[in-house]
Amino acid sequence: MRLVVIGAEAAGLSAASAARRLDPSLDITVFEKTPHVSYGACGLPYFIEGRVRSLDELTVYSAEYFARERNITVRANSEVVAISHPRREVILSTGGRERYDKLIVTTGARRDLSALPGADQPHVFTMDTWAAAERLKQFLASRRPRRADILGAGYLGLEAAEALRTQGLEVTIHQKTGDVLRRRDPWLTRLVADHLERCRIRLLLDSPAVSVPDSDLVIIACLYRPNTLLAAEAGIEIGRTGALRVTPRMETNLHSVYAAGDCAETNHLVSGKPVWMPLGTTAGKMGRAAGANAAGARQSFPGITGTSIVRVCGLGIGLTGLSEQQAKKEGFDAVSVRIEARDRPRYFQGVPVSVQLTADRRTGRLLGGAVIGERGVAGRINVISTALASRMTTAEFETLDLAYAPPFSNVWDPLLIGARQLAKLLH
Amino acid sequence: MRLVVIGAEAAGLSAASAARRLDPSLDITVFEKTPHVSYGACGLPYFIEGRVRSLDELTVYSAEYFARERNITVRANSEVVAISHPRREVILSTGGRERYDKLIVTTGARRDLSALPGADQPHVFTMDTWAAAERLKQFLASRRPRRADILGAGYLGLEAAEALRTQGLEVTIHQKTGDVLRRRDPWLTRLVADHLERCRIRLLLDSPAVSVPDSDLVIIACLYRPNTLLAAEAGIEIGRTGALRVTPRMETNLHSVYAAGDCAETNHLVSGKPVWMPLGTTAGKMGRAAGANAAGARQSFPGITGTSIVRVCGLGIGLTGLSEQQAKKEGFDAVSVRIEARDRPRYFQGVPVSVQLTADRRTGRLLGGAVIGERGVAGRINVISTALASRMTTAEFETLDLAYAPPFSNVWDPLLIGARQLAKLLH
Repeated sequence: MRLVVIGAEAAGLSAASAARRLDPSLDITVFEKTPHVSYGACGLPYFIEGRVRSLDELTVYSAEYFARERNITVRANSEVVAISHPRREVILSTGGRERYDKLIVTTGARRDLSALPGADQPHVFTMDTWAAAERLKQFLASRRPRRADILGAGYLGLEAAEALRTQGLEVTIHQKTGDVLRRRDPWLTRLVADHLERCRIRLLLDSPAVSVPDSDLVIIACLYRPNTLLAAEAGIEIGRTGALRVTPRMETNLHSVYAAGDCAETNHLVSGKPVWMPLGTTAGKMGRAAGANAAGARQSFPGITGTSIVRVCGLGIGLTGLSEQQAKKEGFDAVSVRIEARDRPRYFQGVPVSVQLTADRRTGRLLGGAVIGERGVAGRINVISTALASRMTTAEFETLDLAYAPPFSNVWDPLLIGARQLAKLLH
Repeated sequence: MRLVVIGAEAAGLSAASAARRLDPSLDITVFEKTPHVSYGACGLPYFIEGRVRSLDELTVYSAEYFARERNITVRANSEVVAISHPRREVILSTGGRERYDKLIVTTGARRDLSALPGADQPHVFTMDTWAAAERLKQFLASRRPRRADILGAGYLGLEAAEALRTQGLEVTIHQKTGDVLRRRDPWLTRLVADHLERCRIRLLLDSPAVSVPDSDLVIIACLYRPNTLLAAEAGIEIGRTGALRVTPRMETNLHSVYAAGDCAETNHLVSGKPVWMPLGTTAGKMGRAAGANAAGARQSFPGITGTSIVRVCGLGIGLTGLSEQQAKKEGFDAVSVRIEARDRPRYFQGVPVSVQLTADRRTGRLLGGAVIGERGVAGRINVISTALASRMTTAEFETLDLAYAPPFSNVWDPLLIGARQLAKLLH
């Protein structure tokens, strides 16, 4: 029995490893088109910033590790250019053909620059891959650009802005829509805009890039799309989100073919609808389920609450579930509160934390939240995410038994203060 | 309609405030036997340590604030010595009688030193009240003790140990049982014991204090009991935990009489049994429900997962739910894992975090957890607490959508690594 995996990042390697754990006899080969295997692409902005000294620091495991420890063959520099499902073969760029019994597609995502005139100029970069980050680093060292323009105010755009600001550049972010972080939320946008201004980063909203701006350096942090061409040509169905459609067991419409990671869509646990939200954590979980199922187990991945987090110039921004506007669009009778409260007593240097919570007025069900502050953001957004995953109501959330001691929190955690305000709107 | 509340700390003042919000016309009087109203007793160890300069910093609101802003009369220095329920009266130490229609008992807890010979000596202190902390502070300044012995390795004992160590004393903690932090858990005890040793605090386990040790200074941080005498004499029922028995609406067995806070028991959401676990956060929530119900609403407090947290010499220790031994005692087929993982990538100065998770082998239901580390403890223990409150299984917990970005976490959060290990034991 032979398992072939296309792609050797979070999803692909999690899939291969999960399959191996279940079936020691499986023949497993992972094809990776780049020379780089198993590295944390999320660390690339910190390489540009200078905090990560060498890209090797981002490598989690080597191909040798997979061969030796997990009996998994990882073939770098091996691009799969076609899938012939009737023959159960993948075709490599070298013309070679490799047979499979089970196939897992983890082709990821990429910037689609085809509609952006000027994107092929030498001062235009993405920051999504090892190679792109390496080129950008060299460009910064050799050309010493003074101004940078970043297209896109998603989390990568914000991380890139901080990295380049730290490197001493004058930075402007251009965002096509009126919102940041892919969330229709005027409050959040205002908060982030004010913070960026304090950090001397310019943010231009409603500023669609019809072409590459005139600048010393341009970073493309928008136009991110699932990499579906290879799969689509093989007859794998694409969902409404534009990503590959999969079941909770990561099955595609082709028998014995699975998809996972940034190329595939998943289920949004709040809206109950398919969503495309490429993130390394989700990719790993999807990959694990795909690998387990390819190896004969029955394992489901129920979906995501849509949690994301970003730090920009000292401010942490955590988001989960739906914003009020997104929830209304999904048909909920959404209502929100926003509170600001100190995270600890003054004598433990408490700092303000902003909490936004959204619920459905009819059922009280919690629908989403945002937490913004200098610290304590990840823990609090994770509590909201956990509550969303178990479909908690505001009344249930309000009585959560959250840890309290002066070095850690106030008696009433900002989350509980927010929930209490929200509960009042529901009565 | 007149509401009388006995006690002006977290439970009593939350009760009075909740009643006021629901009924602007209610006549509300709170009797407090001490001169001190609405202060955070949890801050007392930090007053001893020196971080809190003056006890006034711990006061949340003054009696004047309650009178002016909430139309609530708070009478300090007014001890209720008896409740005459047939007459609907409370009797004060002055002999005065005060009528009530509804009564809320929040008499708190105290150290029961009756069985400890020598506890009345001038070098023996508790650290639970404003007055006790004030006396201790004066003793430290005037007598300059060099050695301190602390009875009890609960969270107050550990906080007191750090406070006195910071003040330069040689500290020994005597713990009656073989466990710390009121949790039967050899792993936790070992971990805390090792840490205390590194901080040069002596911990003596299985060391019951039959009398007060010979020392320069002794702190009693054990023998904490619910203050039920007044209520019991009035005919209010006491539960198996030794604290006042209440319904989820905080009703006692006497009509129109409620109890809340450290004097009352509550429901443990994991064991489903009554539990006495006095904590300010729980007291506030119980008080709120009591006040709302006394004012004519219907509000339940479902109970606690038993979350606690303490920091000692830089180490955070968070606990929630049941330990493996506690769970077995409750009839679960409990199984546990313990993992240690870095909380962030190395380039973001990741530090190790220990996670312990316990589940029921038959159902997979999560039963409890512990998180120990230099940081990120509160957020993680709160995620476990939230999962316990919604009766999550290990499989559900394992797919939680937790926030990931390098400044905040690793791709696989230590919680998810633990859950994954635990899931393997359940299959």
